[in-house]
Amino acid sequence: MTITHPPTPGSALWLYAHPRHGSFNHRLFQEGATALGERYSVATSDLHAQGFDPVLGLRDLGDLAATPGNLAEQAGDAYLRGQAAADVLEEQAKLADAELLVIQFPLWWYGMPAILKGWFDRVLTSGFAYGDVDPELGVPRRYGDGGLTGRRALIVVTAGEDERSIGPRGISGDLDALLFPLTHGVLWYVGIDVLDVHVIHDADALDTEAVEREITRLRERLRAIDEEAVQPFRRLRDGDYAGTRALRPELLPGRTDLRIHLDSGE
Amino acid sequence: MTITHPPTPGSALWLYAHPRHGSFNHRLFQEGATALGERYSVATSDLHAQGFDPVLGLRDLGDLAATPGNLAEQAGDAYLRGQAAADVLEEQAKLADAELLVIQFPLWWYGMPAILKGWFDRVLTSGFAYGDVDPELGVPRRYGDGGLTGRRALIVVTAGEDERSIGPRGISGDLDALLFPLTHGVLWYVGIDVLDVHVIHDADALDTEAVEREITRLRERLRAIDEEAVQPFRRLRDGDYAGTRALRPELLPGRTDLRIHLDSGE
Repeated sequence: MTITHPPTPGSALWLYAHPRHGSFNHRLFQEGATALGERYSVATSDLHAQGFDPVLGLRDLGDLAATPGNLAEQAGDAYLRGQAAADVLEEQAKLADAELLVIQFPLWWYGMPAILKGWFDRVLTSGFAYGDVDPELGVPRRYGDGGLTGRRALIVVTAGEDERSIGPRGISGDLDALLFPLTHGVLWYVGIDVLDVHVIHDADALDTEAVEREITRLRERLRAIDEEAVQPFRRLRDGDYAGTRALRPELLPGRTDLRIHLDSGE
Repeated sequence: MTITHPPTPGSALWLYAHPRHGSFNHRLFQEGATALGERYSVATSDLHAQGFDPVLGLRDLGDLAATPGNLAEQAGDAYLRGQAAADVLEEQAKLADAELLVIQFPLWWYGMPAILKGWFDRVLTSGFAYGDVDPELGVPRRYGDGGLTGRRALIVVTAGEDERSIGPRGISGDLDALLFPLTHGVLWYVGIDVLDVHVIHDADALDTEAVEREITRLRERLRAIDEEAVQPFRRLRDGDYAGTRALRPELLPGRTDLRIHLDSGE
Protein backbone atom coordinates (compact mmCIF):
# COMPACT_ATOMS: atom_id res chain seq x y z
CA MET A 1 0.00 0.00 0.00
CA THR A 2 1.29 3.42 -0.88
CA ILE A 3 0.57 6.21 1.55
CA THR A 4 0.13 9.55 -0.13
CA HIS A 5 -2.02 12.47 0.78
CA PRO A 6 -1.47 15.17 -1.84
CA PRO A 7 -2.34 18.52 -0.26
CA THR A 8 -4.87 20.93 -1.70
CA PRO A 9 -2.95 23.87 -3.17
CA GLY A 10 -3.61 27.06 -1.24
CA SER A 11 -4.81 25.20 1.84
CA ALA A 12 -3.35 25.75 5.31
CA LEU A 13 -3.91 24.44 8.85
CA TRP A 14 -3.16 26.55 11.92
CA LEU A 15 -2.66 24.31 14.92
CA TYR A 16 -2.90 26.30 18.14
CA ALA A 17 -2.38 25.33 21.77
CA HIS A 18 -2.94 28.01 24.40
CA PRO A 19 -5.74 27.82 26.95
CA ARG A 20 -6.60 31.48 27.36
CA HIS A 21 -8.91 33.54 25.21
CA GLY A 22 -7.55 37.08 25.01
CA SER A 23 -3.93 36.12 25.74
CA PHE A 24 -1.00 37.36 23.67
CA ASN A 25 -0.87 33.90 22.10
CA HIS A 26 -4.53 34.19 21.24
CA ARG A 27 -3.93 37.51 19.50
CA LEU A 28 -1.03 36.03 17.53
CA PHE A 29 -3.35 33.20 16.53
CA GLN A 30 -6.16 35.47 15.37
CA GLU A 31 -4.00 38.05 13.62
CA GLY A 32 -1.73 35.40 12.14
CA ALA A 33 -4.58 33.31 10.76
CA THR A 34 -6.15 36.45 9.30
CA ALA A 35 -2.91 37.52 7.62
CA LEU A 36 -2.40 34.00 6.25
CA GLY A 37 -5.99 34.11 5.01
CA GLU A 38 -5.01 36.71 2.44
CA ARG A 39 -3.35 33.96 0.41
CA TYR A 40 -4.46 30.68 1.91
CA SER A 41 -7.67 29.00 2.81
CA VAL A 42 -6.99 28.53 6.53
CA ALA A 43 -8.47 25.76 8.67
CA THR A 44 -7.76 25.96 12.41
CA SER A 45 -7.39 23.53 15.27
CA ASP A 46 -7.73 25.42 18.54
CA LEU A 47 -6.94 22.46 20.76
CA HIS A 48 -8.04 23.89 24.10
CA ALA A 49 -11.24 25.33 22.63
CA GLN A 50 -11.98 21.97 21.00
CA GLY A 51 -11.32 20.14 24.26
CA PHE A 52 -8.94 17.87 22.37
CA ASP A 53 -7.96 14.81 24.41
CA PRO A 54 -4.22 14.24 23.94
CA VAL A 55 -3.95 10.85 25.64
CA LEU A 56 -3.23 8.03 23.20
CA GLY A 57 -4.86 5.01 24.76
CA LEU A 58 -6.71 1.79 24.15
CA ARG A 59 -9.71 3.52 22.55
CA ASP A 60 -7.37 4.45 19.67
CA LEU A 61 -6.80 0.79 18.83
CA GLY A 62 -10.26 -0.24 17.62
CA ASP A 63 -10.85 -4.00 17.84
CA LEU A 64 -7.25 -4.51 18.93
CA ALA A 65 -7.64 -2.79 22.30
CA ALA A 66 -7.52 -6.09 24.18
CA THR A 67 -4.92 -7.78 21.95
CA PRO A 68 -1.28 -7.73 23.08
CA GLY A 69 1.01 -5.93 20.64
CA ASN A 70 2.76 -2.73 19.72
CA LEU A 71 0.55 0.28 20.30
CA ALA A 72 1.74 2.34 17.35
CA GLU A 73 1.21 -0.58 14.96
CA GLN A 74 -2.20 -1.30 16.37
CA ALA A 75 -3.26 2.35 16.09
CA GLY A 76 -2.14 2.15 12.44
CA ASP A 77 -4.16 -1.02 11.92
CA ALA A 78 -7.17 0.66 13.46
CA TYR A 79 -6.74 3.58 11.06
CA LEU A 80 -6.47 1.30 8.02
CA ARG A 81 -9.60 -0.59 9.07
CA GLY A 82 -11.60 2.59 9.56
CA GLN A 83 -11.60 2.33 13.34
CA ALA A 84 -9.68 5.46 14.24
CA ALA A 85 -11.45 7.76 16.71
CA ALA A 86 -13.71 10.43 15.20
CA ASP A 87 -11.68 13.36 16.56
CA VAL A 88 -8.50 11.86 15.13
CA LEU A 89 -10.09 11.40 11.70
CA GLU A 90 -11.18 15.02 11.73
CA GLU A 91 -7.67 16.26 12.49
CA GLN A 92 -6.15 13.90 9.91
CA ALA A 93 -8.50 15.29 7.25
CA LYS A 94 -7.43 18.86 8.02
CA LEU A 95 -3.76 17.90 7.97
CA ALA A 96 -4.10 15.88 4.76
CA ASP A 97 -5.66 18.90 3.07
CA ALA A 98 -3.05 21.46 4.15
CA GLU A 99 0.07 22.33 2.19
CA LEU A 100 1.15 24.75 4.92
CA LEU A 101 1.00 23.82 8.58
CA VAL A 102 1.47 26.47 11.28
CA ILE A 103 2.08 25.08 14.77
CA GLN A 104 1.75 27.73 17.48
CA PHE A 105 2.37 27.17 21.17
CA PRO A 106 3.96 28.61 24.29
CA LEU A 107 7.18 26.83 25.29
CA TRP A 108 6.32 24.94 28.49
CA TRP A 109 9.16 23.14 30.22
CA TYR A 110 11.23 23.55 27.07
CA GLY A 111 8.79 21.69 24.90
CA MET A 112 5.24 21.50 23.63
CA PRO A 113 2.28 21.69 25.99
CA ALA A 114 0.89 18.18 26.56
CA ILE A 115 -2.26 18.92 24.54
CA LEU A 116 -0.11 19.53 21.46
CA LYS A 117 2.30 16.64 22.02
CA GLY A 118 -0.69 14.36 22.25
CA TRP A 119 -2.10 15.69 18.98
CA PHE A 120 0.97 14.21 17.29
CA ASP A 121 0.80 11.03 19.41
CA ARG A 122 -2.78 10.38 18.29
CA VAL A 123 -3.11 11.96 14.83
CA LEU A 124 0.10 10.80 13.14
CA THR A 125 -0.75 7.13 13.04
CA SER A 126 1.15 4.54 11.11
CA GLY A 127 -0.69 3.97 7.85
CA PHE A 128 -1.70 7.62 7.68
CA ALA A 129 1.59 9.44 8.21
CA TYR A 130 4.32 6.81 7.80
CA GLY A 131 4.93 3.10 7.55
CA ASP A 132 5.44 2.50 3.87
CA VAL A 133 8.59 1.10 2.25
CA ASP A 134 9.97 2.58 -0.94
CA PRO A 135 9.35 -0.17 -3.55
CA GLU A 136 12.51 0.62 -5.51
CA LEU A 137 14.97 1.40 -2.75
CA GLY A 138 13.65 -0.98 -0.13
CA VAL A 139 14.10 1.60 2.63
CA PRO A 140 11.32 2.89 4.85
CA ARG A 141 9.68 6.04 3.53
CA ARG A 142 10.52 8.22 6.48
CA TYR A 143 12.74 11.23 7.15
CA GLY A 144 11.87 13.38 4.18
CA ASP A 145 9.93 10.77 2.35
CA GLY A 146 6.88 9.83 4.42
CA GLY A 147 3.16 10.00 3.88
CA LEU A 148 2.91 13.76 4.18
CA THR A 149 5.46 15.08 1.69
CA GLY A 150 4.65 18.18 -0.30
CA ARG A 151 3.97 20.21 2.82
CA ARG A 152 5.81 22.86 4.78
CA ALA A 153 5.55 23.68 8.46
CA LEU A 154 6.16 26.87 10.42
CA ILE A 155 6.58 26.69 14.18
CA VAL A 156 5.54 29.85 16.04
CA VAL A 157 6.63 29.70 19.66
CA THR A 158 6.50 32.13 22.56
CA ALA A 159 9.20 31.79 25.20
CA GLY A 160 9.57 33.37 28.60
CA GLU A 161 13.32 33.50 28.19
CA ASP A 162 15.52 35.78 26.13
CA GLU A 163 17.60 34.91 23.10
CA ARG A 164 20.74 34.31 25.16
CA SER A 165 19.14 31.76 27.50
CA ILE A 166 17.77 29.68 24.62
CA GLY A 167 20.52 30.56 22.14
CA PRO A 168 23.37 28.32 20.95
CA ARG A 169 25.23 28.37 24.30
CA GLY A 170 22.25 29.33 26.44
CA ILE A 171 21.73 27.72 29.81
CA SER A 172 18.41 26.24 28.74
CA GLY A 173 19.78 24.74 25.53
CA ASP A 174 19.55 26.08 22.01
CA LEU A 175 15.94 26.37 20.85
CA ASP A 176 16.67 24.45 17.63
CA ALA A 177 17.99 21.55 19.72
CA LEU A 178 15.08 21.73 22.16
CA LEU A 179 12.65 21.56 19.23
CA PHE A 180 14.56 18.87 17.28
CA PRO A 181 12.19 16.11 18.45
CA LEU A 182 9.38 18.10 16.79
CA THR A 183 11.12 19.54 13.72
CA HIS A 184 13.11 16.48 12.74
CA GLY A 185 11.63 13.64 14.78
CA VAL A 186 8.00 14.38 13.96
CA LEU A 187 7.68 16.71 10.97
CA TRP A 188 10.63 15.66 8.83
CA TYR A 189 10.02 12.01 9.77
CA VAL A 190 6.65 12.08 8.01
CA GLY A 191 7.99 14.10 5.08
CA ILE A 192 7.09 17.66 6.06
CA ASP A 193 9.64 20.37 5.25
CA VAL A 194 10.37 22.69 8.16
CA LEU A 195 10.91 26.44 8.00
CA ASP A 196 13.08 28.33 10.48
CA VAL A 197 11.31 28.61 13.82
CA HIS A 198 9.51 31.89 14.51
CA VAL A 199 10.29 32.68 18.14
CA ILE A 200 9.04 35.49 20.32
CA HIS A 201 11.45 35.92 23.21
CA ASP A 202 10.58 37.42 26.61
CA ALA A 203 6.96 36.88 25.70
CA ASP A 204 5.70 37.44 29.23
CA ALA A 205 7.34 40.84 29.53
CA LEU A 206 6.22 42.62 26.35
CA ASP A 207 4.66 46.06 26.71
CA THR A 208 1.82 47.20 24.42
CA GLU A 209 4.19 48.57 21.83
CA ALA A 210 6.27 45.38 21.75
CA VAL A 211 3.14 43.29 21.35
CA GLU A 212 2.12 45.29 18.29
CA ARG A 213 5.64 45.03 16.91
CA GLU A 214 5.60 41.25 17.29
CA ILE A 215 2.22 40.97 15.62
CA THR A 216 3.47 43.05 12.70
CA ARG A 217 6.60 40.92 12.48
CA LEU A 218 4.55 37.71 12.31
CA ARG A 219 2.14 39.17 9.73
CA GLU A 220 5.04 40.23 7.53
CA ARG A 221 6.71 36.87 7.79
CA LEU A 222 3.50 35.09 6.83
CA ARG A 223 2.96 37.31 3.80
CA ALA A 224 6.31 36.26 2.36
CA ILE A 225 6.27 32.68 3.64
CA ASP A 226 6.06 31.08 0.19
CA GLU A 227 9.45 32.52 -0.73
CA GLU A 228 11.30 31.06 2.25
CA ALA A 229 13.85 28.28 2.03
CA VAL A 230 13.29 25.22 4.20
CA GLN A 231 15.77 23.65 6.64
CA PRO A 232 17.98 21.27 4.66
CA PHE A 233 17.52 18.13 6.74
CA ARG A 234 19.12 15.07 5.18
CA ARG A 235 16.80 12.73 3.32
CA LEU A 236 17.09 9.08 4.41
CA ARG A 237 16.88 7.77 0.85
CA ASP A 238 19.88 9.85 -0.20
CA GLY A 239 22.17 7.44 1.60
CA ASP A 240 23.92 9.71 4.12
CA TYR A 241 23.10 7.27 6.90
CA ALA A 242 24.92 3.94 7.00
CA GLY A 243 22.40 1.12 7.12
CA THR A 244 19.76 3.87 7.42
CA ARG A 245 20.79 4.38 11.03
CA ALA A 246 23.87 6.50 11.77
CA LEU A 247 25.48 9.30 9.78
CA ARG A 248 28.32 7.94 7.67
CA PRO A 249 31.66 8.47 9.46
CA GLU A 250 33.17 10.46 6.57
CA LEU A 251 30.44 13.12 6.81
CA LEU A 252 31.28 15.83 9.38
CA PRO A 253 33.69 13.43 11.13
CA GLY A 254 33.74 13.50 14.90
CA ARG A 255 30.75 15.76 15.31
CA THR A 256 27.81 14.60 17.40
CA ASP A 257 25.65 17.72 17.67
CA LEU A 258 22.18 17.72 16.17
CA ARG A 259 23.15 20.06 13.33
CA ILE A 260 24.90 17.13 11.62
CA HIS A 261 21.45 16.20 10.32
CA LEU A 262 21.37 19.35 8.19
CA ASP A 263 23.04 19.06 4.81
CA SER A 264 24.52 22.56 4.84
CA GLY A 265 27.23 21.86 2.30
CA GLU A 266 29.94 21.77 5.01
CA MET B 1 9.49 32.75 51.00
CA THR B 2 11.88 29.86 50.85
CA ILE B 3 10.78 26.82 48.92
CA THR B 4 12.15 23.61 50.33
CA HIS B 5 10.66 20.18 50.43
CA PRO B 6 13.14 17.92 52.20
CA PRO B 7 12.47 14.36 51.07
CA THR B 8 11.75 11.49 53.39
CA PRO B 9 14.83 9.25 53.49
CA GLY B 10 14.13 5.88 51.92
CA SER B 11 11.10 7.12 50.03
CA ALA B 12 10.68 6.73 46.24
CA LEU B 13 8.11 7.59 43.59
CA TRP B 14 7.71 5.53 40.42
CA LEU B 15 6.02 7.61 37.75
CA TYR B 16 4.71 5.40 34.96
CA ALA B 17 3.06 6.21 31.65
CA HIS B 18 1.97 3.30 29.49
CA PRO B 19 -1.67 2.57 28.71
CA ARG B 20 -1.66 -1.21 28.55
CA HIS B 21 -1.96 -3.64 31.42
CA GLY B 22 0.19 -6.69 30.65
CA SER B 23 2.55 -4.88 28.26
CA PHE B 24 6.33 -5.16 28.46
CA ASN B 25 6.34 -1.68 29.99
CA HIS B 26 3.84 -2.86 32.57
CA ARG B 27 6.08 -5.76 33.52
CA LEU B 28 9.07 -3.45 33.85
CA PHE B 29 6.94 -1.24 36.09
CA GLN B 30 5.80 -4.07 38.33
CA GLU B 31 9.13 -5.87 38.56
CA GLY B 32 11.06 -2.64 38.88
CA ALA B 33 8.87 -1.26 41.65
CA THR B 34 9.13 -4.60 43.48
CA ALA B 35 12.93 -4.65 43.21
CA LEU B 36 13.12 -1.05 44.38
CA GLY B 37 10.82 -1.96 47.26
CA GLU B 38 13.60 -4.04 48.79
CA ARG B 39 15.30 -0.81 49.87
CA TYR B 40 12.77 1.95 49.40
CA SER B 41 9.22 2.66 50.38
CA VAL B 42 7.79 3.03 46.86
CA ALA B 43 4.78 5.16 45.96
CA THR B 44 3.53 4.88 42.38
CA SER B 45 1.76 7.13 39.91
CA ASP B 46 0.32 4.97 37.13
CA LEU B 47 -0.93 7.87 35.03
CA HIS B 48 -3.16 5.98 32.62
CA ALA B 49 -4.68 3.86 35.39
CA GLN B 50 -5.33 7.02 37.42
CA GLY B 51 -6.90 8.74 34.40
CA PHE B 52 -4.57 11.67 34.99
CA ASP B 53 -5.58 14.71 32.96
CA PRO B 54 -2.41 16.26 31.51
CA VAL B 55 -3.92 19.47 30.15
CA LEU B 56 -2.81 22.55 32.08
CA GLY B 57 -5.73 24.93 31.78
CA LEU B 58 -7.77 27.60 33.48
CA ARG B 59 -9.00 25.28 36.24
CA ASP B 60 -5.36 25.18 37.47
CA LEU B 61 -5.42 28.93 38.16
CA GLY B 62 -7.93 29.10 41.03
CA ASP B 63 -9.48 32.57 41.39
CA LEU B 64 -7.21 33.91 38.67
CA ALA B 65 -8.79 31.90 35.86
CA ALA B 66 -10.48 34.99 34.42
CA THR B 67 -7.66 37.44 35.15
CA PRO B 68 -5.22 38.26 32.33
CA GLY B 69 -1.63 37.29 33.13
CA ASN B 70 1.10 34.73 32.81
CA LEU B 71 -0.24 31.22 33.22
CA ALA B 72 2.77 29.75 35.02
CA GLU B 73 2.78 32.59 37.54
CA GLN B 74 -0.93 32.29 38.10
CA ALA B 75 -0.70 28.52 38.61
CA GLY B 76 1.99 29.27 41.20
CA ASP B 77 -0.23 31.85 42.90
CA ALA B 78 -3.06 29.33 42.97
CA TYR B 79 -0.72 26.82 44.61
CA LEU B 80 0.43 29.28 47.26
CA ARG B 81 -3.16 30.22 48.07
CA GLY B 82 -4.23 26.61 48.43
CA GLN B 83 -6.21 26.60 45.19
CA ALA B 84 -4.28 24.00 43.22
CA ALA B 85 -6.37 21.15 41.83
CA ALA B 86 -6.79 18.11 44.09
CA ASP B 87 -5.06 15.72 41.69
CA VAL B 88 -2.09 18.09 41.41
CA LEU B 89 -1.79 18.36 45.21
CA GLU B 90 -1.77 14.60 45.48
CA GLU B 91 1.06 14.25 42.95
CA GLN B 92 3.01 17.09 44.57
CA ALA B 93 2.77 15.34 47.94
CA LYS B 94 4.19 12.12 46.49
CA LEU B 95 6.99 14.00 44.75
CA ALA B 96 7.82 16.08 47.83
CA ASP B 97 8.15 12.90 49.83
CA ALA B 98 10.42 11.02 47.42
CA GLU B 99 14.20 11.13 47.46
CA LEU B 100 14.34 8.89 44.39
CA LEU B 101 12.12 9.48 41.39
CA VAL B 102 11.82 6.84 38.64
CA ILE B 103 10.22 8.09 35.44
CA GLN B 104 9.25 5.27 33.08
CA PHE B 105 7.75 5.70 29.63
CA PRO B 106 7.84 4.50 26.03
CA LEU B 107 9.53 6.97 23.68
CA TRP B 108 6.73 8.34 21.51
CA TRP B 109 7.74 10.67 18.70
CA TYR B 110 11.15 11.05 20.35
CA GLY B 111 9.75 12.36 23.58
CA MET B 112 7.42 11.73 26.47
CA PRO B 113 3.83 10.62 25.93
CA ALA B 114 1.48 13.58 26.40
CA ILE B 115 0.10 12.21 29.66
CA LEU B 116 3.59 12.39 31.18
CA LYS B 117 4.56 15.77 29.69
CA GLY B 118 1.38 17.18 31.18
CA TRP B 119 2.22 15.77 34.59
CA PHE B 120 5.21 18.11 34.62
CA ASP B 121 3.18 20.98 33.10
CA ARG B 122 0.64 20.76 35.91
CA VAL B 123 2.51 19.40 38.95
CA LEU B 124 5.73 21.46 38.86
CA THR B 125 4.12 24.79 39.63
CA SER B 126 6.01 27.90 40.50
CA GLY B 127 5.96 28.21 44.29
CA PHE B 128 6.18 24.46 44.68
CA ALA B 129 9.09 23.51 42.44
CA TYR B 130 10.86 26.77 41.60
CA GLY B 131 10.53 30.52 41.75
CA ASP B 132 12.65 31.51 44.71
CA VAL B 133 15.70 33.79 44.59
CA ASP B 134 18.83 32.95 46.54
CA PRO B 135 18.93 35.63 49.27
CA GLU B 136 22.72 35.83 49.30
CA LEU B 137 23.55 35.50 45.62
CA GLY B 138 20.51 37.27 44.21
CA VAL B 139 20.17 34.69 41.43
CA PRO B 140 17.09 32.57 40.86
CA ARG B 141 17.22 29.21 42.59
CA ARG B 142 17.00 27.10 39.48
CA TYR B 143 19.27 24.72 37.59
CA GLY B 144 20.61 22.64 40.42
CA ASP B 145 19.27 24.79 43.18
CA GLY B 146 15.47 24.77 43.01
CA GLY B 147 12.70 23.67 45.34
CA LEU B 148 13.31 19.97 44.93
CA THR B 149 17.01 19.54 45.68
CA GLY B 150 18.18 16.49 47.59
CA ARG B 151 16.55 14.13 45.10
CA ARG B 152 17.75 11.91 42.29
CA ALA B 153 15.88 10.79 39.19
CA LEU B 154 16.23 7.73 36.97
CA ILE B 155 14.61 7.74 33.55
CA VAL B 156 13.63 4.30 32.25
CA VAL B 157 12.67 4.47 28.59
CA THR B 158 11.72 1.89 25.99
CA ALA B 159 12.52 2.74 22.39
CA GLY B 160 11.50 1.06 19.16
CA GLU B 161 14.85 1.93 17.60
CA ASP B 162 18.28 0.45 18.10
CA GLU B 163 21.30 2.03 19.71
CA ARG B 164 22.68 3.27 16.40
CA SER B 165 19.52 5.15 15.38
CA ILE B 166 19.32 7.01 18.69
CA GLY B 167 23.06 7.04 19.38
CA PRO B 168 25.44 10.02 19.11
CA ARG B 169 25.29 10.22 15.29
CA GLY B 170 22.01 8.37 14.89
CA ILE B 171 19.46 9.55 12.36
CA SER B 172 16.89 10.20 15.08
CA GLY B 173 19.25 12.22 17.25
CA ASP B 174 21.19 11.13 20.29
CA LEU B 175 18.87 10.01 23.09
CA ASP B 176 20.61 12.26 25.63
CA ALA B 177 19.89 15.26 23.38
CA LEU B 178 16.30 14.16 22.74
CA LEU B 179 15.75 13.90 26.50
CA PHE B 180 17.61 17.12 27.40
CA PRO B 181 14.36 19.09 27.80
CA LEU B 182 13.40 16.55 30.50
CA THR B 183 16.75 15.84 32.15
CA HIS B 184 18.11 19.38 32.22
CA GLY B 185 15.11 21.59 31.40
CA VAL B 186 12.73 19.99 33.89
CA LEU B 187 14.58 17.88 36.46
CA TRP B 188 17.83 19.80 36.90
CA TYR B 189 15.90 23.09 36.66
CA VAL B 190 14.03 22.26 39.86
CA GLY B 191 17.14 20.89 41.56
CA ILE B 192 16.82 17.16 40.92
CA ASP B 193 20.02 15.26 40.13
CA VAL B 194 19.75 13.00 37.09
CA LEU B 195 21.25 9.54 36.68
CA ASP B 196 22.26 8.10 33.30
CA VAL B 197 19.19 7.15 31.33
CA HIS B 198 18.21 3.47 31.40
CA VAL B 199 17.21 2.66 27.84
CA ILE B 200 15.80 -0.53 26.39
CA HIS B 201 16.46 -0.53 22.65
CA ASP B 202 14.39 -2.44 20.05
CA ALA B 203 11.74 -2.78 22.71
CA ASP B 204 9.06 -3.90 20.26
CA ALA B 205 11.13 -6.77 18.95
CA LEU B 206 12.27 -8.56 22.11
CA ASP B 207 11.69 -12.29 22.36
CA THR B 208 10.80 -13.95 25.65
CA GLU B 209 14.41 -14.47 26.59
CA ALA B 210 15.35 -10.87 25.84
CA VAL B 211 12.43 -9.63 27.91
CA GLU B 212 13.67 -11.60 30.92
CA ARG B 213 17.20 -10.36 30.35
CA GLU B 214 15.99 -6.75 30.32
CA ILE B 215 13.98 -7.23 33.48
CA THR B 216 17.01 -8.70 35.22
CA ARG B 217 19.17 -5.83 33.98
CA LEU B 218 16.74 -3.27 35.38
CA ARG B 219 16.43 -5.10 38.71
CA GLU B 220 20.20 -5.22 39.06
CA ARG B 221 20.58 -1.57 38.23
CA LEU B 222 17.96 -0.62 40.81
CA ARG B 223 19.63 -2.67 43.51
CA ALA B 224 22.86 -0.69 43.14
CA ILE B 225 21.23 2.64 42.32
CA ASP B 226 22.40 4.37 45.51
CA GLU B 227 26.03 3.93 44.50
CA GLU B 228 25.67 5.60 41.09
CA ALA B 229 27.15 8.96 40.18
CA VAL B 230 24.80 11.61 38.82
CA GLN B 231 25.21 13.58 35.59
CA PRO B 232 27.44 16.58 36.35
CA PHE B 233 25.18 19.35 35.02
CA ARG B 234 26.50 22.82 35.75
CA ARG B 235 24.94 24.62 38.71
CA LEU B 236 23.68 28.11 37.89
CA ARG B 237 24.96 29.57 41.15
CA ASP B 238 28.50 28.43 40.38
CA GLY B 239 28.87 31.22 37.84
CA ASP B 240 29.63 29.31 34.63
CA TYR B 241 26.89 31.24 32.84
CA ALA B 242 27.49 34.93 32.08
CA GLY B 243 24.62 36.98 33.44
CA THR B 244 23.01 33.64 34.33
CA ARG B 245 22.16 33.14 30.66
CA ALA B 246 24.89 31.83 28.32
CA LEU B 247 27.94 29.69 29.02
CA ARG B 248 31.00 31.89 29.48
CA PRO B 249 32.97 32.11 26.22
CA GLU B 250 36.18 30.80 27.80
CA LEU B 251 34.51 27.51 28.77
CA LEU B 252 34.58 24.92 25.93
CA PRO B 253 35.06 27.73 23.39
CA GLY B 254 33.21 27.42 20.12
CA ARG B 255 31.13 24.43 21.11
CA THR B 256 27.36 24.65 20.90
CA ASP B 257 26.24 21.06 21.52
CA LEU B 258 24.14 20.28 24.58
CA ARG B 259 26.98 18.48 26.35
CA ILE B 260 28.53 21.87 27.16
CA HIS B 261 26.12 21.97 30.09
CA LEU B 262 27.94 19.07 31.73
CA ASP B 263 30.95 20.01 33.81
CA SER B 264 33.06 17.03 32.77
CA GLY B 265 36.39 18.58 33.61
CA GLU B 266 37.24 19.12 29.91
